[in-house]
Amino acid sequence: MPAKKIGKRTVRFESPPSVISSACVGGKREREGPLSEIFDYLSDDAFFGEDSWEKAESKMQTAALEAALSKASLPPSALGCILAGDLLPQCTASSFGLRGFGAPYWGVYGACSTSAESLALAAMLLDGGFFDVAACVTGSHFCSAERQFRTPLEYGGQRTPTAQRTVTGCGAFILSSAASGKALPPLNPHAPAPPTARGGTSAASGKAGVYITHATTGVIIDAGISDPSNMGAAMAPAAYDTISAHLRDLGVPANHYDLIVTGDLGAHGADILTGLLLRDGFDISDRYNDCGLMIYNREEQDMHCGGSGCGCSASVLAGKLIPELRDGSLKRVLFCATGALLSATSALQGESIPGICYAVALER
Amino acid sequence: MPAKKIGKRTVRFESPPSVISSACVGGKREREGPLSEIFDYLSDDAFFGEDSWEKAESKMQTAALEAALSKASLPPSALGCILAGDLLPQCTASSFGLRGFGAPYWGVYGACSTSAESLALAAMLLDGGFFDVAACVTGSHFCSAERQFRTPLEYGGQRTPTAQRTVTGCGAFILSSAASGKALPPLNPHAPAPPTARGGTSAASGKAGVYITHATTGVIIDAGISDPSNMGAAMAPAAYDTISAHLRDLGVPANHYDLIVTGDLGAHGADILTGLLLRDGFDISDRYNDCGLMIYNREEQDMHCGGSGCGCSASVLAGKLIPELRDGSLKRVLFCATGALLSATSALQGESIPGICYAVALER
Repeated sequence: MPAKKIGKRTVRFESPPSVISSACVGGKREREGPLSEIFDYLSDDAFFGEDSWEKAESKMQTAALEAALSKASLPPSALGCILAGDLLPQCTASSFGLRGFGAPYWGVYGACSTSAESLALAAMLLDGGFFDVAACVTGSHFCSAERQFRTPLEYGGQRTPTAQRTVTGCGAFILSSAASGKALPPLNPHAPAPPTARGGTSAASGKAGVYITHATTGVIIDAGISDPSNMGAAMAPAAYDTISAHLRDLGVPANHYDLIVTGDLGAHGADILTGLLLRDGFDISDRYNDCGLMIYNREEQDMHCGGSGCGCSASVLAGKLIPELRDGSLKRVLFCATGALLSATSALQGESIPGICYAVALER
Repeated sequence: MPAKKIGKRTVRFESPPSVISSACVGGKREREGPLSEIFDYLSDDAFFGEDSWEKAESKMQTAALEAALSKASLPPSALGCILAGDLLPQCTASSFGLRGFGAPYWGVYGACSTSAESLALAAMLLDGGFFDVAACVTGSHFCSAERQFRTPLEYGGQRTPTAQRTVTGCGAFILSSAASGKALPPLNPHAPAPPTARGGTSAASGKAGVYITHATTGVIIDAGISDPSNMGAAMAPAAYDTISAHLRDLGVPANHYDLIVTGDLGAHGADILTGLLLRDGFDISDRYNDCGLMIYNREEQDMHCGGSGCGCSASVLAGKLIPELRDGSLKRVLFCATGALLSATSALQGESIPGICYAVALER
């Protein structure tokens, strides 16, 4: 078995791709939350200047990728490919939001796990030598998600205690293969101190590069939960499955990582996950967090179990965790985005909610 | 630039992955068409024994993958990963249809280009050394697609002359990395003449292996078409873009291939494509076909411009083209599945229809 494959589910990258830049955009509730400062752009207008929420969601994808490219001092033509996804039917936030970049495009769908799914796939495509630079873009919008998955906002439905709020947010990442170190064309050759391809913001700043070292592919796990207002319980078994597979494949204890972070399990799902892992001897309680618990003040903002949506984990990773890895506050993070693979139709037809979780290991 | 990358858009596989088996399932209209014999299973019941069309679509995915695994004499546990997608919102035909296989799973979305998108990605993951065996599954269902993209069947809407009919069909492919030649566990060790991992049906039969040698990634092309009943015109510019990029990247004329085949442009889109390519000096008319023109008797079956849907190209490739490559009737095929990246919502909001096309080169 080649060294690239570790155990049954995990791959180790021989030349770990680096995250050369990341950016995120958000909405009004995200501005009111504790992480308002992580966003590159925040709009108090839920329409982002467009005439529909779906078009707003596309505009967020455009803005997030433009910001990430700008931070990397790269023109769109430097992109070998884009991997993108969202929660709208037929993933139209991505296809409409990113059609203007003219880049080779891979549409992916992992519900709220899309951020980690796209990062894991991109790392494989870069480490495999097929592309030099890739962008990953993932976003969600509260208003379009409510009418897609639950009830139209105008209906004014009450939310149950286990409900989470879909984050209006979008995160974008620019990844570079280790091999392409010198090949990145600068946006403006006269600009001061462009980032090095091997991941630093700038050599002069003393900030380090951030690398994707491992990825663990998700398996669809269906624990029989059928309440679309209890996504945390539906996704927690998948998170448990992937995190325990990852730790077993690497043969490391939980404290191998400074932080093990899930995407949007929320308060209820996080409790289930830590309990399931503890049963197997993995005590992650002192180094675990969930992006859905970080992005809002749950009590003050009346967010019930926390944030959700694929823009939740994408924004927190892009705006908070990547910068903290870069400045040394974090050294090694296991980023585990979780997705609930249901649709409004499947829920109305009485189906349970299958979950999936992809894990990506990031090191400074 | 590594030898893996050819030109701007195309990759060449250093160790071309092989298609070790393929299978497809279809419905009543597919049985009535000229390709009825290519299907491994045909159901006259649009529900496939389930109580909704969406569940029927999931069942087709299950059945197609089971048939492909059976032909390869492989158990589900041999799958390193599955790449799958469909046209339903949130790609639920795939997530529900494939949740029982217990395999690492990548959800992809390329509308009707999903068959080629998933094959191209799978070939990269195998050639990159990340997995030994991968399955690609893509399907669509006429009844669920009509109510998703156009009007509910009960409405009895009239179809326009440029309309195509969504194929009720699903294709599944099992791919093996060249390196994994001896690692495939047989389903039944006592079974006669199992397929070799390097692509033959059986050494004794004299049939050859089928390999994926190149892949060209799609770019989103929006020509401004906004009529959801004229998908051919919306997708043809993307097919033109990818096919011309592929031929330019390889530096070969169109007759490098025995067959250049698009997914579901239909009669109108096929005319546009051949005209656009001819303008550039690529005359493909004597070696071009479209899966949407092959699967039905357009006149007798009243199919207007032909078949469409992501099950169209997946079924024709799995049931007709792969076997013809294996038996030598075809030697080198450029398979170009085309997708229209719209949704019912985007169409109602007045958006145009972006198209995309992925190309995969298959050789005997």
